[in-house]
Amino acid sequence: MSAPDGKSAFRGTGDTKALVLERRGELSLRDFPVEETLGSRDVRVAIHTVGICGSDVHYYTHGRIGSFVVNEPMILGHEAAGVVVECGSDVSDLTVGDRVCMEPGIADPGSRASRLGMYNLDPAVRFWATPPVHGVLRAHVVHPAHLTYKLPGNVSFAAGAMVEPLAVGVQAAKQARVKPGDCAVVIGAGPIGLVTVLAAFAAGCARVIVSDVDDRKLEIAARLGAVETVNVAEDNLAERVMGATDGWGADIVFECSGNEKACETIFAPLCPGGAVVFVGIPLQPIAYDVAAAQLKEARVEHVFRYAHVFDRCVAMLSSGAIDVAPLITRTMPFENSIEAFELAASAPPGEVKIQIEMPGA
Amino acid sequence: MSAPDGKSAFRGTGDTKALVLERRGELSLRDFPVEETLGSRDVRVAIHTVGICGSDVHYYTHGRIGSFVVNEPMILGHEAAGVVVECGSDVSDLTVGDRVCMEPGIADPGSRASRLGMYNLDPAVRFWATPPVHGVLRAHVVHPAHLTYKLPGNVSFAAGAMVEPLAVGVQAAKQARVKPGDCAVVIGAGPIGLVTVLAAFAAGCARVIVSDVDDRKLEIAARLGAVETVNVAEDNLAERVMGATDGWGADIVFECSGNEKACETIFAPLCPGGAVVFVGIPLQPIAYDVAAAQLKEARVEHVFRYAHVFDRCVAMLSSGAIDVAPLITRTMPFENSIEAFELAASAPPGEVKIQIEMPGA
Amino acid sequence: MSAPDGKSAFRGTGDTKALVLERRGELSLRDFPVEETLGSRDVRVAIHTVGICGSDVHYYTHGRIGSFVVNEPMILGHEAAGVVVECGSDVSDLTVGDRVCMEPGIADPGSRASRLGMYNLDPAVRFWATPPVHGVLRAHVVHPAHLTYKLPGNVSFAAGAMVEPLAVGVQAAKQARVKPGDCAVVIGAGPIGLVTVLAAFAAGCARVIVSDVDDRKLEIAARLGAVETVNVAEDNLAERVMGATDGWGADIVFECSGNEKACETIFAPLCPGGAVVFVGIPLQPIAYDVAAAQLKEARVEHVFRYAHVFDRCVAMLSSGAIDVAPLITRTMPFENSIEAFELAASAPPGEVKIQIEMPGA
Amino acid sequence: MSAPDGKSAFRGTGDTKALVLERRGELSLRDFPVEETLGSRDVRVAIHTVGICGSDVHYYTHGRIGSFVVNEPMILGHEAAGVVVECGSDVSDLTVGDRVCMEPGIADPGSRASRLGMYNLDPAVRFWATPPVHGVLRAHVVHPAHLTYKLPGNVSFAAGAMVEPLAVGVQAAKQARVKPGDCAVVIGAGPIGLVTVLAAFAAGCARVIVSDVDDRKLEIAARLGAVETVNVAEDNLAERVMGATDGWGADIVFECSGNEKACETIFAPLCPGGAVVFVGIPLQPIAYDVAAAQLKEARVEHVFRYAHVFDRCVAMLSSGAIDVAPLITRTMPFENSIEAFELAASAPPGEVKIQIEMPGA
Repeated sequence: MSAPDGKSAFRGTGDTKALVLERRGELSLRDFPVEETLGSRDVRVAIHTVGICGSDVHYYTHGRIGSFVVNEPMILGHEAAGVVVECGSDVSDLTVGDRVCMEPGIADPGSRASRLGMYNLDPAVRFWATPPVHGVLRAHVVHPAHLTYKLPGNVSFAAGAMVEPLAVGVQAAKQARVKPGDCAVVIGAGPIGLVTVLAAFAAGCARVIVSDVDDRKLEIAARLGAVETVNVAEDNLAERVMGATDGWGADIVFECSGNEKACETIFAPLCPGGAVVFVGIPLQPIAYDVAAAQLKEARVEHVFRYAHVFDRCVAMLSSGAIDVAPLITRTMPFENSIEAFELAASAPPGEVKIQIEMPGA
Repeated sequence: MSAPDGKSAFRGTGDTKALVLERRGELSLRDFPVEETLGSRDVRVAIHTVGICGSDVHYYTHGRIGSFVVNEPMILGHEAAGVVVECGSDVSDLTVGDRVCMEPGIADPGSRASRLGMYNLDPAVRFWATPPVHGVLRAHVVHPAHLTYKLPGNVSFAAGAMVEPLAVGVQAAKQARVKPGDCAVVIGAGPIGLVTVLAAFAAGCARVIVSDVDDRKLEIAARLGAVETVNVAEDNLAERVMGATDGWGADIVFECSGNEKACETIFAPLCPGGAVVFVGIPLQPIAYDVAAAQLKEARVEHVFRYAHVFDRCVAMLSSGAIDVAPLITRTMPFENSIEAFELAASAPPGEVKIQIEMPGA
Repeated sequence: MSAPDGKSAFRGTGDTKALVLERRGELSLRDFPVEETLGSRDVRVAIHTVGICGSDVHYYTHGRIGSFVVNEPMILGHEAAGVVVECGSDVSDLTVGDRVCMEPGIADPGSRASRLGMYNLDPAVRFWATPPVHGVLRAHVVHPAHLTYKLPGNVSFAAGAMVEPLAVGVQAAKQARVKPGDCAVVIGAGPIGLVTVLAAFAAGCARVIVSDVDDRKLEIAARLGAVETVNVAEDNLAERVMGATDGWGADIVFECSGNEKACETIFAPLCPGGAVVFVGIPLQPIAYDVAAAQLKEARVEHVFRYAHVFDRCVAMLSSGAIDVAPLITRTMPFENSIEAFELAASAPPGEVKIQIEMPGA
Repeated sequence: MSAPDGKSAFRGTGDTKALVLERRGELSLRDFPVEETLGSRDVRVAIHTVGICGSDVHYYTHGRIGSFVVNEPMILGHEAAGVVVECGSDVSDLTVGDRVCMEPGIADPGSRASRLGMYNLDPAVRFWATPPVHGVLRAHVVHPAHLTYKLPGNVSFAAGAMVEPLAVGVQAAKQARVKPGDCAVVIGAGPIGLVTVLAAFAAGCARVIVSDVDDRKLEIAARLGAVETVNVAEDNLAERVMGATDGWGADIVFECSGNEKACETIFAPLCPGGAVVFVGIPLQPIAYDVAAAQLKEARVEHVFRYAHVFDRCVAMLSSGAIDVAPLITRTMPFENSIEAFELAASAPPGEVKIQIEMPGA
C-alpha cells in the first residue's frame, strides 16, 4: 500500500460497506458511500480496529444522547486505529503505511475555545458517530493529519483503538493534577473507571481504591496495579478510605459511575485540600453538599472528552507505563458487528471492551 | 500605655465587662472574667472595635450553628481591632501601643493540615465566639502574636475590624486564581457578597456583575467599582452575563448567597474553562448539574474561612486597593451592644455592617 | 464611512503614504503601496494612532534585532489603533466604524504551539514591523478580525495604541500569578517597566517597589500608585525591599531592565517561594545564582510578547483599573514622524511614549 | 524490644559508639555520647541502616559546605532507617517496634515559611550532619514523631534509608508538575540524577532521556525504565532530544549535574512552554540565556531538599511504583564505616549508593 512519494498509494477500493444505525434499535451492515475530499492537511486511513463505546450502544438502544438525535442513518464507531493510505500535499509528519490511531473530534481552529487551547470545549466540534457526523465502522476515513497519531511498533492496533477511551482517563488524571504518591479513589469500575485507574497510576498515584457494586468488575480493577477494591453494596467507601489513610482521606476522588447516589457523599472519602474529578455523566442533577466541600476546601474538576492527550496516551502505551490489554475482553470480525453490538448492549458480566476488526486487518 | 521595654505596659484594669450570650435569645452585658495566661509568643490586646457578624447573630437567634451548640454562657464577637498592651517575652515584631487587628482562629501548628499550610482546615482550630471558645466583645484578649497584624497609620480601627470578613472575600479571590482583566459574577449582595466584590476587583477583575433580589443591596454594590447589577427577581442572570460578554460567559462565578435555588443554575453564566467559587454556605445540599459543568470543564473551588490573607488585607487597605468604608453602615457604643444585636437580627434594609466601639476607644 | 450592511464601506483611498525604513539609519515618508487581500475573516482598518516602540527605534538605529535583519525597505510601527473600514464576509463581531486596536502578531492556527493555546510561541508568527513583515505607519491595514479588538467609548485611540506595550506588562503579571495583596519589585522604569507597574497593580499587587538609576523615570513611576522608588545608583535594592517587608522579601520580582548587572542579584530581594519574571531581554547571558534561587525555591517565568491578553487590557482600560495616560508623553502628526523617530532615538529624559497621529485622525 | 503500652521499651543500652568527623579529613569510630531528651511528641529510634551521601563525603574531604563549617567533632549520616524503641506520651500513630525512616530536617513550626507549608525553606531548620547538628551514624536518635515514617512490611530498611535521597528527586518531580506522558531530560546520572529519573517515571513521564559523560553511570540509568541515554562527550544533547521529539523538545529538563557548562545550554532541548528544574547545585553562578528562555516562555523551578514528600516516597516504594534496589550498590558493616567513607570519597566507577548497617541490624 506504500507509494514512492509516500503520498498517493490510495486508488480507491470501492469498498463502501459500513455498520449503519438506520434508526433506534435497527442496525444494518450495508453499502453506505460517504463522500469525502482529501484536503491538503488531511490523511486517508484504512480502518483496522474499532472499539465499541457505551455511547455507540446508547445511540443503538435509545436513538439519542441528550440533544443529539439520530434522524438519519448514521455509521457508528469512534474508537479506531488503522493504516494511512493517502496523504494530503501539506502533510509532512505522516506517510503512507503508517500505523495510526485517530482523535475523533474536529474543532474549528478559529473558535475562541480552540485558540485558548481548549478545543474540546468548542461547541462547533464535529465528533464521529455523533449526529449528524458519521463514525468509522467502515473501510476508510479522511481525517486531519494533526488528529492522526502514529503508533510505534510496539503498540498494537488493538491498543491503538483503546487510545480514545484511555484519553478520557488521562484527561481526568491531568485535570486532577496528580502529585507523585497520591492516593486516589475511583468510583465505578466500568470501562471509564478502569481507564481512569490506569491513568491515575501512570500519572503518579501510588494507590487506587476502586469501588463498585459488581465484584466481576472489581476483580478486573484489582489486576491493574496497587488497587484496593470496595464493594459498596457491602461496605462503606468513606470508612474504608479513612481506614486506609490514617483518617486523612484520599488526595483525589474520580467519580466514574455517573450514579447520583454515589455522588451524594463524594466529599466523604476526600482529604482536606483534595480534588474531586467528575468523569461520569449523571443523567440528573446530583445532591451536592457544599458545606462538606467547604470544610475541606475541595477543588472540583470536570472532564469533557479530552484535549492534547492522544500523543501522551500513545507514548505511555509504548513505554509500558500503561497496559490496556486487560480491558480488551473480546475481538469480533466486522461481518459480526451487529452481533457484537447486541452483545455489548446486553452488558454481560466481566465484559469490558469489545473490539471489531475490519476485513483484511 | 507604652513601656520602656515595649513588653509590659499592662498592669490589669479589672475591667471584665463583656457581651455574653447566656443562652439562645438572651444577651447580657455583665462582668464575665476570662482566665487568660500570656504565653511567650502571645500579646494582650485592648479591644477597640468589634464588628457584628451574621454568625454572632445566628448564635443569638438560634443558639447553634450546625454541630456547634451554645451550652454555656459565651462572649460573642470575632471581628476585632485594638491596641497591644502587653507582649510575651519572645515577641519581637509587635510592641506595646501598636494598633492591630486579629485573626480569630487558632490552629494546632503540629496538625497535618497546618503543616501543609492549610491551617484553616485543621479540625482542632479554636475560633472566637464558636462554642466553647469565647469571643472578644470584652475589654482585653490574649492572642498569639503571629495572628495579630499591625495596622499602618492610614488604616482605621473600623477598617481593621473589617479585615476578618474581608479575608473571606480575599480567600475566595485567591482560590479563584483571578487573572488580570477577568469578568466575575457575584451572586448575593450581603456582607460576604460585598467583600467578595471588593476582593474580586483588588485581585484583578475588570468587571463584576452582582446579582440579588434586593435593590437596596444592589445599590451599595454598585458603588464599589465597575459593577453591573442584576435583580434576579426581574431579570435572568445568565442572559445578562452572556449579553455582557459576547456570549462567552464570565470567567468566575462567586456564589455568596447560600441560596439553593441560585446554585441550581450556577454554571449557566460561566465561560468555558471558567471557575465557580462557593463562598456562601447553603443549609441543604444543592441540585448540581454535573453535565453542565462538564460541557465547560468548570473548576469549582470552596472557601472555608481563610488562611494567610490577613496581612494581605491590611496591605490592600493601606495601599487604597480596597476601601471598606461603604460597608460600615453603623457604629454603636459598647453599652448599647444588646440593642446593636437586636438591630442586626432585624436585618434592616440598607444595613450592611454594624460595628461596636469599646469604652474609651 | 459606514455602510448599510456594515461590511463594505471601503472603496479605497489611494493613500499609500507610509513611514519606510529604507535601510539602517534612513527613514523616508513616501508612497509605498502594500498589496493586501481582504479574506473572509479579515477586516480593513484605517490607522488612527501609532506608538513608537523601542524595537522600531532599534531597527532604525541598528538595522537589525538579533537574527531579524532589514534587507528590504520596511514600514515601521506595530502599536496601533484605528477604525474598521471594511469587513470580510464571515466577520460577525465587528462592523464598519468600530474603533479598534490590533494585536500585531499573526500565528499559524494549525501550529502545535497555537493548538496548545501558546500562539505567541509559534516560530512561524508574522509580526508587524519585523522583517520581512511591514508595520502599520500607513493609512490602512488588513488584519484578522480575531486579532482586532473593539474599543469601548471611554477608551481613546491613544489608549488603544498603548494596548500593545501594556499587553507585555499584563502577560508578565499573568505569568507571575499575582495573589491579592502581593508586594512586587519592578527593576527598570522604562516603558516596559512602567506598563508592568500598571499591570502589577491591576493584577492585585498592593505595593510595587520600582528601581532604576534615573530619577526622572522614577518620578513617573511614583505617580502610578502605591509605589516606592529606589535609585540603585545610591541605594541597595535588596536591603530596601527587606526593610519594607519585615525581612521576608517581595513576592514577585519583575526584571524589566534587561541589564545584566541587575540580573546578577535578582534573587536577593525575593521572598521564600517567590517568583521572578524576566520581561526585559538582556543582550548577553546573565550570571545566574542557582544556589541562591534554590534556597528560596524560586519560580522563574519568562515573557515572550503576550497571548490572550489584548481583550483583558481593553477591559481594564475601560473599567479604570489601568490608566495609561501618564505614560503618553508626546503626540506628533504623521508628517513629522521622522522627527518623532529621531526624538525617540535620542531618548530624552522624562520621555516615555511618543505616539504618531495619522492625517484626518 | 516491645512494651505492653507501646511507649516505653527503651531502657538505654549504653551504646554510644558513633562515626565522628573529628575535623576535615579525620574520621573516628568512637564513643560519643549525645544528650537527648524525649519530648512528648518525639520517638527514639534505634538506627538500622544509614546511606552515605555526597554531602557527608564533602564534609569529610573539605570540612565545610558553603557557610557550614565543621568546627567541632560531628557525627555524620542523615539517610537513615531504623526501629522505634520509645515513644513520647503524646505519640499516637507510632509504636515501639515500628520499622521507620526519618526526615532529617527539623524546622520551627512557628516560622513564617513553616506556616505557609514550606518548612524546608525555614532558615532555622536543624538538619542532621550539618554543623552544628549531629548526624545519625550512631546507635539511637530522638526525633519528632511527625518526621518519622512507618515502613510497610514490603519496604526494607535499605529502601527506607534511600527515602532521603529519593525525596529530592520526588520534590523535583513535584515542582516540575509532570503531566502524564511527558518526556523529560535528566542531565547528570549521579545519585541525584538517578533518583530524579525514578521520580520522573513515577510522576508520569513516559520517557526520560539521561545525559552524562560516564558510560558506567548511563548504563545504570538505562536500567531504570524507558530511558534513552546520551553521552554528551560524544553526542549533542539538544539535537538528540529534538530528534526524539519530532523537533518539539522535552517537556521538562531536570538539571542534576551541577555542572556550569551543562547549564549554559539548558533551554536548548526544552519545548515551548516547558519547565526546567534545577536540582544540582552549581558552585558558581551559571551563564543563563534569558532570551532563549523567553522564546519558549520557559518556567524554571528550583529544589531545596524537600517538603511533604517522605510519606509519598514510602507509598511509592511500597506500591512498586519506585524500585531503588538498582541504586544500592554496596552495603558495609558499621565497624567498617571509615573504610566505607574512603571508598565513597574515591568515587569508584559504577558505585552509586553505599549503605552502612548498624551492629545487630
